[in-house]
Amino acid sequence: MTEIERLLAIEEIKQVKAKYFYAFDHKDWDMWRREVWAPDGRLEVPEFREEPFTPFEEVLRYASEAAADQVSVHHGHMPIITFTSDTEAKVIWAMEDLLFRTPGHPLYDGSTWLHGWGHYHETYVKRDVGWRILSSRLTRLRVEMKKVF
Amino acid sequence: MTEIERLLAIEEIKQVKAKYFYAFDHKDWDMWRREVWAPDGRLEVPEFREEPFTPFEEVLRYASEAAADQVSVHHGHMPIITFTSDTEAKVIWAMEDLLFRTPGHPLYDGSTWLHGWGHYHETYVKRDVGWRILSSRLTRLRVEMKKVF
Amino acid sequence: MTEIERLLAIEEIKQVKAKYFYAFDHKDWDMWRREVWAPDGRLEVPEFREEPFTPFEEVLRYASEAAADQVSVHHGHMPIITFTSDTEAKVIWAMEDLLFRTPGHPLYDGSTWLHGWGHYHETYVKRDVGWRILSSRLTRLRVEMKKVF
Repeated sequence: MTEIERLLAIEEIKQVKAKYFYAFDHKDWDMWRREVWAPDGRLEVPEFREEPFTPFEEVLRYASEAAADQVSVHHGHMPIITFTSDTEAKVIWAMEDLLFRTPGHPLYDGSTWLHGWGHYHETYVKRDVGWRILSSRLTRLRVEMKKVF
Repeated sequence: MTEIERLLAIEEIKQVKAKYFYAFDHKDWDMWRREVWAPDGRLEVPEFREEPFTPFEEVLRYASEAAADQVSVHHGHMPIITFTSDTEAKVIWAMEDLLFRTPGHPLYDGSTWLHGWGHYHETYVKRDVGWRILSSRLTRLRVEMKKVF
Repeated sequence: MTEIERLLAIEEIKQVKAKYFYAFDHKDWDMWRREVWAPDGRLEVPEFREEPFTPFEEVLRYASEAAADQVSVHHGHMPIITFTSDTEAKVIWAMEDLLFRTPGHPLYDGSTWLHGWGHYHETYVKRDVGWRILSSRLTRLRVEMKKVF
């Protein structure tokens, strides 16, 4: 990669992750599938389940079920980006999320409000359609649960 | 635009929005006017008022009145940037704000603390002085109001 | 600097600050020393102490002591970047931090939870190893202290 190609790739990766958050918090699963993830993308959320969600249809099923009956706010910050080849990158994003759940939520456990902080550890791949997320693993620094805000 | 011109425009747009937040939270309305907004800029805050604030003197009046008697914290995240021409761009920013108000605040309603999350939907234009915000509309995912923190 | 060199410098500065946060919140002081700070780096935290922490060994001692017995979350946002020469830049970062302390914490004062917002006012220098933080001063918009979350 030339320096300009690297800068363009960084910017494109930031756009992909920006759409990840926007699509999730607006429950736009079509945008999530088409503009964010590789078709062979996989997701790990160890706090919730040890085994990764894969194939991608499982990622989508988990996300759309977890997002049902809740308002969510996900923010990403300060990516550390390392290219491992011209078409592969590792990225760590700091993150914060707020989930406002109802008792009808499938993961409802008596808490209606989750506030968490952590990091996404991700790999991105460049495919014909552009850069996409190939894998994402969420680790936590802290999670607060409250019955009410 | 060449690829480099596009990268430079993206970086300049980020600088403009960074100054938007810094100037607002420091109540530096001169910086806001000179370095952030186009002279024909307009602002929509549907949660507060349906009609846009326009002309720009109205934007400034609303912002400076709303910021009086309060400490504010505004953060912007993860822009989705789309150029519609060489001199125009659409940008969606995720945002979070905290407003710590006093009973003397002009919008005081019994709550001294507002914590909100949402998105700015903005248009930017390139003028002689550089990129500036032409329009901004704030939508909300969630707003929490508390009497005390 | 050419325009591309400036874009590359901006990106490198963002990487340095991203590692600042990641290393601090993971208490990785070796990464902090090697990849983030200049060896003559200095830190000012006026809310805690008026005199700057210097030489760098004092910065490291303060940070590692303050981080002991706590979970910390530090996020940085929306840098305003100004190059003062080809090898020097001034950067203002908006920031938010959460410190979850235990009664065993060296700065414990009856509060176990600190939530703050403010700005880092920093200078960066380009050395043989790349861009590094030369000085950092933290100002606050607001700090909330709570006995429990």
